[in-house]
Amino acid sequence: MSDAYRGFRTAGGRLAEEQLAHLQTHKTSLLGESIWGIHAFDKAHLVVLAEAGLLSAEEARDLLRAMRKMEEEGVFEARDHAGGGMHSAEHYLVNELGIDRGGRIHLGRSSGDLIEVARRITIRGHLLTILAGLVGIRESLVALAREHADSVMPGYTHGQQAQPTTFGHWAMMFEQSFARDTARVQELFARVNLSPAGAAILTGSSFDIDRERSSALLGFDAPLANTMDAILSHDLEMEVASVYTILAATLARVADDLFLWVTSEFAFVRVPDRFCGTSSIMPQKRNPDALESVKSTSSQALGALVSIVTAERGPTGFPILERRYTQDVLWRLGSELGVKLGDMNEILRGLEVDVDRMAESAGAYWAQVTDLAAALAETGIDWRRSHLIVAAFVRLATEQGLTPQTVTRELLDEAAREVAGRASGLSQEEFDEAMSARAFVRRRTMYGSPGPEAVRTVAAQSAERIAADAAALRARTEQVESAARILEQAIDGLVT
Amino acid sequence: MSDAYRGFRTAGGRLAEEQLAHLQTHKTSLLGESIWGIHAFDKAHLVVLAEAGLLSAEEARDLLRAMRKMEEEGVFEARDHAGGGMHSAEHYLVNELGIDRGGRIHLGRSSGDLIEVARRITIRGHLLTILAGLVGIRESLVALAREHADSVMPGYTHGQQAQPTTFGHWAMMFEQSFARDTARVQELFARVNLSPAGAAILTGSSFDIDRERSSALLGFDAPLANTMDAILSHDLEMEVASVYTILAATLARVADDLFLWVTSEFAFVRVPDRFCGTSSIMPQKRNPDALESVKSTSSQALGALVSIVTAERGPTGFPILERRYTQDVLWRLGSELGVKLGDMNEILRGLEVDVDRMAESAGAYWAQVTDLAAALAETGIDWRRSHLIVAAFVRLATEQGLTPQTVTRELLDEAAREVAGRASGLSQEEFDEAMSARAFVRRRTMYGSPGPEAVRTVAAQSAERIAADAAALRARTEQVESAARILEQAIDGLVT
Amino acid sequence: MSDAYRGFRTAGGRLAEEQLAHLQTHKTSLLGESIWGIHAFDKAHLVVLAEAGLLSAEEARDLLRAMRKMEEEGVFEARDHAGGGMHSAEHYLVNELGIDRGGRIHLGRSSGDLIEVARRITIRGHLLTILAGLVGIRESLVALAREHADSVMPGYTHGQQAQPTTFGHWAMMFEQSFARDTARVQELFARVNLSPAGAAILTGSSFDIDRERSSALLGFDAPLANTMDAILSHDLEMEVASVYTILAATLARVADDLFLWVTSEFAFVRVPDRFCGTSSIMPQKRNPDALESVKSTSSQALGALVSIVTAERGPTGFPILERRYTQDVLWRLGSELGVKLGDMNEILRGLEVDVDRMAESAGAYWAQVTDLAAALAETGIDWRRSHLIVAAFVRLATEQGLTPQTVTRELLDEAAREVAGRASGLSQEEFDEAMSARAFVRRRTMYGSPGPEAVRTVAAQSAERIAADAAALRARTEQVESAARILEQAIDGLVT
Amino acid sequence: MSDAYRGFRTAGGRLAEEQLAHLQTHKTSLLGESIWGIHAFDKAHLVVLAEAGLLSAEEARDLLRAMRKMEEEGVFEARDHAGGGMHSAEHYLVNELGIDRGGRIHLGRSSGDLIEVARRITIRGHLLTILAGLVGIRESLVALAREHADSVMPGYTHGQQAQPTTFGHWAMMFEQSFARDTARVQELFARVNLSPAGAAILTGSSFDIDRERSSALLGFDAPLANTMDAILSHDLEMEVASVYTILAATLARVADDLFLWVTSEFAFVRVPDRFCGTSSIMPQKRNPDALESVKSTSSQALGALVSIVTAERGPTGFPILERRYTQDVLWRLGSELGVKLGDMNEILRGLEVDVDRMAESAGAYWAQVTDLAAALAETGIDWRRSHLIVAAFVRLATEQGLTPQTVTRELLDEAAREVAGRASGLSQEEFDEAMSARAFVRRRTMYGSPGPEAVRTVAAQSAERIAADAAALRARTEQVESAARILEQAIDGLVT
Repeated sequence: MSDAYRGFRTAGGRLAEEQLAHLQTHKTSLLGESIWGIHAFDKAHLVVLAEAGLLSAEEARDLLRAMRKMEEEGVFEARDHAGGGMHSAEHYLVNELGIDRGGRIHLGRSSGDLIEVARRITIRGHLLTILAGLVGIRESLVALAREHADSVMPGYTHGQQAQPTTFGHWAMMFEQSFARDTARVQELFARVNLSPAGAAILTGSSFDIDRERSSALLGFDAPLANTMDAILSHDLEMEVASVYTILAATLARVADDLFLWVTSEFAFVRVPDRFCGTSSIMPQKRNPDALESVKSTSSQALGALVSIVTAERGPTGFPILERRYTQDVLWRLGSELGVKLGDMNEILRGLEVDVDRMAESAGAYWAQVTDLAAALAETGIDWRRSHLIVAAFVRLATEQGLTPQTVTRELLDEAAREVAGRASGLSQEEFDEAMSARAFVRRRTMYGSPGPEAVRTVAAQSAERIAADAAALRARTEQVESAARILEQAIDGLVT
Repeated sequence: MSDAYRGFRTAGGRLAEEQLAHLQTHKTSLLGESIWGIHAFDKAHLVVLAEAGLLSAEEARDLLRAMRKMEEEGVFEARDHAGGGMHSAEHYLVNELGIDRGGRIHLGRSSGDLIEVARRITIRGHLLTILAGLVGIRESLVALAREHADSVMPGYTHGQQAQPTTFGHWAMMFEQSFARDTARVQELFARVNLSPAGAAILTGSSFDIDRERSSALLGFDAPLANTMDAILSHDLEMEVASVYTILAATLARVADDLFLWVTSEFAFVRVPDRFCGTSSIMPQKRNPDALESVKSTSSQALGALVSIVTAERGPTGFPILERRYTQDVLWRLGSELGVKLGDMNEILRGLEVDVDRMAESAGAYWAQVTDLAAALAETGIDWRRSHLIVAAFVRLATEQGLTPQTVTRELLDEAAREVAGRASGLSQEEFDEAMSARAFVRRRTMYGSPGPEAVRTVAAQSAERIAADAAALRARTEQVESAARILEQAIDGLVT
Repeated sequence: MSDAYRGFRTAGGRLAEEQLAHLQTHKTSLLGESIWGIHAFDKAHLVVLAEAGLLSAEEARDLLRAMRKMEEEGVFEARDHAGGGMHSAEHYLVNELGIDRGGRIHLGRSSGDLIEVARRITIRGHLLTILAGLVGIRESLVALAREHADSVMPGYTHGQQAQPTTFGHWAMMFEQSFARDTARVQELFARVNLSPAGAAILTGSSFDIDRERSSALLGFDAPLANTMDAILSHDLEMEVASVYTILAATLARVADDLFLWVTSEFAFVRVPDRFCGTSSIMPQKRNPDALESVKSTSSQALGALVSIVTAERGPTGFPILERRYTQDVLWRLGSELGVKLGDMNEILRGLEVDVDRMAESAGAYWAQVTDLAAALAETGIDWRRSHLIVAAFVRLATEQGLTPQTVTRELLDEAAREVAGRASGLSQEEFDEAMSARAFVRRRTMYGSPGPEAVRTVAAQSAERIAADAAALRARTEQVESAARILEQAIDGLVT
Repeated sequence: MSDAYRGFRTAGGRLAEEQLAHLQTHKTSLLGESIWGIHAFDKAHLVVLAEAGLLSAEEARDLLRAMRKMEEEGVFEARDHAGGGMHSAEHYLVNELGIDRGGRIHLGRSSGDLIEVARRITIRGHLLTILAGLVGIRESLVALAREHADSVMPGYTHGQQAQPTTFGHWAMMFEQSFARDTARVQELFARVNLSPAGAAILTGSSFDIDRERSSALLGFDAPLANTMDAILSHDLEMEVASVYTILAATLARVADDLFLWVTSEFAFVRVPDRFCGTSSIMPQKRNPDALESVKSTSSQALGALVSIVTAERGPTGFPILERRYTQDVLWRLGSELGVKLGDMNEILRGLEVDVDRMAESAGAYWAQVTDLAAALAETGIDWRRSHLIVAAFVRLATEQGLTPQTVTRELLDEAAREVAGRASGLSQEEFDEAMSARAFVRRRTMYGSPGPEAVRTVAAQSAERIAADAAALRARTEQVESAARILEQAIDGLVT
């Protein structure tokens, strides 16, 4: 052939006209990261064809040698030059070896399994990176929890100070959240890492393609059990987008907590300058850019999820082209989540915590008075009246402009008499102890609570679970890498 | 007290004014199904308080006897009459026993764990119903697959006929999808079935509340390991909504396939009249109402998911009231999915399949010609030219107004000569065999493909997996029911 | 007929089986507010039929008398008792007059135009209420702006204090936003207030139905120009949901600003107790329930929008039943937005603003220093270096633990020398003036800026625009009410 | 300066550390199309500064000459080389003229108004393109309607054949939809085309910046009336996304109708090969790629809308950085909608309509029988019994395997006797006329209905409205272009 191979879409084949230029999306540049999944499947498929006798030894040798040549030239460049997008290997091989050789690579497969194999390999890669990021951030949170197991701070509900807690307890809350994210990603991984190879476009092939073999060569756990399901069901993309959305929402919540706490008004923590931006007009500005950047993934993720679910609406096999658009956004998101997990991890490691200001704040706005009611209840009065006495006490105090620092036990007695017809029954010492935010936290010894020992106990449990998750991640990574080695060995045997 | 107890929200406690009437959402009628979770927690909490010595034997006896009296009166009615919404037990008990007794139920807990325990118990119930529905629909799909393992029909991509497949293969595609849904619900169940009880509002309690015990009495697997996480993290609601959305999307896809196939133009299947509606103006109308009804859950689910994720945006502890609205939609959805799974199951069981029309259609629009190219490839010519020969053959045929029934082997030879400079090399018998849609399907013997044997093999595997899932469901149900028995036994011991 | 009329859906008509009970959604209780639109159309249609001679004078008289009787009995109750949902008038009339009379009401129309007329009338009602709510809230904002035109407060970007502004400027920002919402609702109203009556199910009727007349009798501006568009296009519902979502987002932003400002840490404003809730465990709690309630509409609205857009996906005439579900959520939302606008209006009217604390905060965290750079620029040095000098000045000050209250002009000179090799050139008086947050605001005289005069100027413009919008609203309301009167007069003429 | 200017963000200004590299998003390559808005504002701002005496004549001359030099070099290249992203003009000018000159461009403005001016100019451009696309597609639909005013085809509800209509009526339905889109875009345009220039970051400036002048020089209608609203309110982006989503949904519906009609089973229309793709495995494949491509914008648009609304959640001034991400997706969408409108217009112009098959189908599945009931009603019997007679007639016919072509009048008489106790009363001629789909359509003479004359009447009205919309578009375009000329003339006056 004197001219470069132009593929099967040219006018004069099935169609009498050339397709409009801007509809031709079969470009290597549009494959993004999925090029590596396509390349792997191209090689694995040639091995499977050869082993099944669907290629002669000579054909297999020539084709695989040409693939190795392509790798020497640079996979992206060689494919981009050859054209054909996901079919660039066929273009390259036809150009190199003629159509009688190159025209054989696509026997027994389709764009369908090409896309789906590449999709799963791409997502698999993102999931492994995300799992590594989750292990990292959970380790940082456990470290923070141990360091700040007795750093007292206010906890909030409805945006109002609720009760004193500890910064370590806050950190462990997010460790628990990210542990659930880890489980979701792990479970999703098991559904993703199955092989569509051999499913062709929906019915598989009449040729004797060994799906177990291609699955193993590509590092998958097993072939998918229904070839139409392998290509045309897309619930898995929805699950990927969902898992990303939930993870991004938790990341955004960490960012939102810190974003609030770096305001001048809260000023509980400070993020180092390298995470900040400034302003072209306001010379004093120190904006927490990195926090906003982390948070922004969450709105993108939710939008992506909506696009993906919406795009799939309709009968089986109707929405196909639309997936090309939704997969782009999914891949960008998968890649971005890896980066944002890393950023948040760095922020947490660099965080400057103003423990004194936090502790002072925890006692300054009545957050401690749940335990004043508890102290009353310990005198034998029922909980509800204990609670109402303290409610009236706080109302009276604020009406009189008193704070937890200036209020006296006498006002409590007044409230108690009003509500329950008796004095509070608390000694000054009991009153002072009940009004201490630090003592509040020390009284929390229950499993899962913010008391220092309780925080350290759960931190130790989490550290073990993180270690196990890290080990499982290494095993998954090794399976993928091992398959790649076996594939190269199989090729070695065929090219010589 | 001469008057009914009005709770802790009245003017003169913490607040000087009564709250605006329409903001007062603490009504039993708004609790919906969650009333059963609240009721169970009320009882379990009293047991835990009693066992810890935080109630005297007499107090415990009186309180639990009153709870049994409430049950005799009817839980909903008694609570609705007492008022107070989720705090209706306190209202009821104060009215029955006075505040010195009734005011003790809320010691060591909060609206926070009340809501969260009830939320998880409610969701747990929905998940069990959904799991039962999934087992049912998967059994029906396996039955359909076995019945129609060799019912030939067209498969579609891009809305165009792609290749012949079997109706059994179609059914097994959805069995695979619903199997993934089953796994997602099972994994979610493990995250849902953990106990927030004892977490109070975010820091647990200074009182000695046994969280292991309340967890066991409520049928949970274990207490949650961080009390702030237990109340203020809401990634789980996002996961529930995601899992529902994905399941609803697959249900919608089954509905969409059938909706298309009941059109006059496709007419592959018919749904019985009991699933249909008619028109007030068009006397001939026979609308597939049940299919539309099943499908409609998917747009509701996606909207609910978006509401839930959006509502949670903001710092920890900021979005709380908003959850009351989003949980309503989540519960309605959970309940509705159970109904829709049942409806679709009934539709599948009642479906009338026009196997002759399907089979005829599968050969009428060239869907079979992938295997004509395969036949050419078997003569030794490379795949790509085989494919291009057939592409030209189909184009020429359609230009000449020929159909797969009227076209002849001579046109294939003409196309072959044009593309490859040689005749097709196929005998008439080979040509006829390659042009048979039924033979196409019979050639699919690969694992997971639409050939009758392949369909039956996977159906057998699925049947085993469904049986295992059904057994796991029974075990989960038994755990919940067993806990309820243990709780009643504990109460028996305290009331006598 | 001895038995009550059971309508056209019974087994033995088009269908051989009764429809499954839970699919039968034709119940009056499910019509919600739309019952009033259906009732109006029932009457207007009878008038149109009579005027066209499609009913005899006697038939018209009997039918319209029966309709008046229904109104005496109570429309909802009579229809609920008659059954048939949107066809309850037919049921009622057949029961009252026999099928030979009652069977005539539906001539020349369909469920299609019944639903669409009722839909538009319902939405029209919501839009009028929302327009009234917008006028009210804008009036309150203008009043706040006038009262607080020189109440200095900090403005924020990236959550960090940016520059001093005024509370009046903040109020006018939202007046502008709500003015855009008003315009959107007005423009939407013009598209909504068009008549589908006569379109029947999609092709209109072969009978001579006067669409101009029914349009006028129902208060619409004109009949829709395409009968298929009238019934099967649903872009308008998407627009309604969009307009609601945008309005709800702005309401949520007002709520979010106030929610932040009522925290103990900001403490800029206070909302009266009647808008607050408290806690069952934390006696000090004063939660801004009304703000959360207002905000919560925004997540519901976005979810509803997504449901509505998603539900419409598919070919024309495919998604119909699904609309019944999405319209419910749209109507609930329309009704709720009216309430929430009223709530926010009340909150704004009752708001307690701590002007001293706001003013102090505006100068406490360097927000004023844009104008320190401006003062430098006025000495002739370029803006960028002026800005960089002040940037360095703030950095040095904070490194030394200085605040705007304790920093001295000498540090500015030091920074100026470092950056530009010269002293600042500012006198002490100039420095002090530049460091005053109050002076900052007074210097803002530009159109649209926060300076007191600028705020008052725009407030006056807005007051005029609001008055015009209120007048337009009155005109729209009068058109609807006038049509109702004309309809009753037409009936008067026919029943006598 | 020996080195290139590095801007105001470098370490040693406000911040002590360099920002992390991947957070530095101030790159010209990320500005996309908005670079043209930024460039225009840079020039207009220099003119305003000069006219206000805030630049000396020499400074203005030097700075504007340098801007012209930049244009000679190529705006994108020069800015990309200078660095600084949206501040690239400052970088360029400092490099060219030194900081004493170049450091003056940013006086009295901020990144805030830079971004917002560029955002509105970019959106304005997209809206003008979209308006042109809407005019084009509406013209094509009117042309189709006129050509096919009496091309009979089936109309569908619930996916089932409902009544005969005309292809012209279908085309006019979409003309009406796109007319509403046109109105929405026009109304949005009026809100978009207002000037944020001078608002700086939120309070405007203490310098005497003429906002009327900058507004006019940039082609805006007027300055925005609140500077905080100008920068920090983002309801308009939500409206843009909403309007795009609704338009995309209607485009998708056109595509979905055609996608269904090009199936082998419907086969009502054919799209030319240039809009089609084929398959790598199925030689017969002719996929309607262009239809799928048009449709796919709708899921992207809905996702973008969700991202944008979600990103804005929070207090004023909190979500800022996140907008950079959401604006990208909005701009891509705006640009893509222009392309997709063009594609759909081309498809409509090239559409091959099989009028014979459509007409045959319209009579083949009982769609015409609404008028058989009407014929009965014309004999004097009430509508409901007429309808029930025909319902029974169709049920009996289908039970007997009869079609509209084989059924006889006798069966109608049988049904009439069963339901109403009398014969149908129709002559054979009346029966035949009532059973004709073509006659059905001819009887539709009502305004807005599918009858040929009714279609032509509305088409004429639409043609006038389209012409008016085209004229309004030309006026808007001219305003923008005229402002650009005036800006260049002002610069001419200052550089000489």
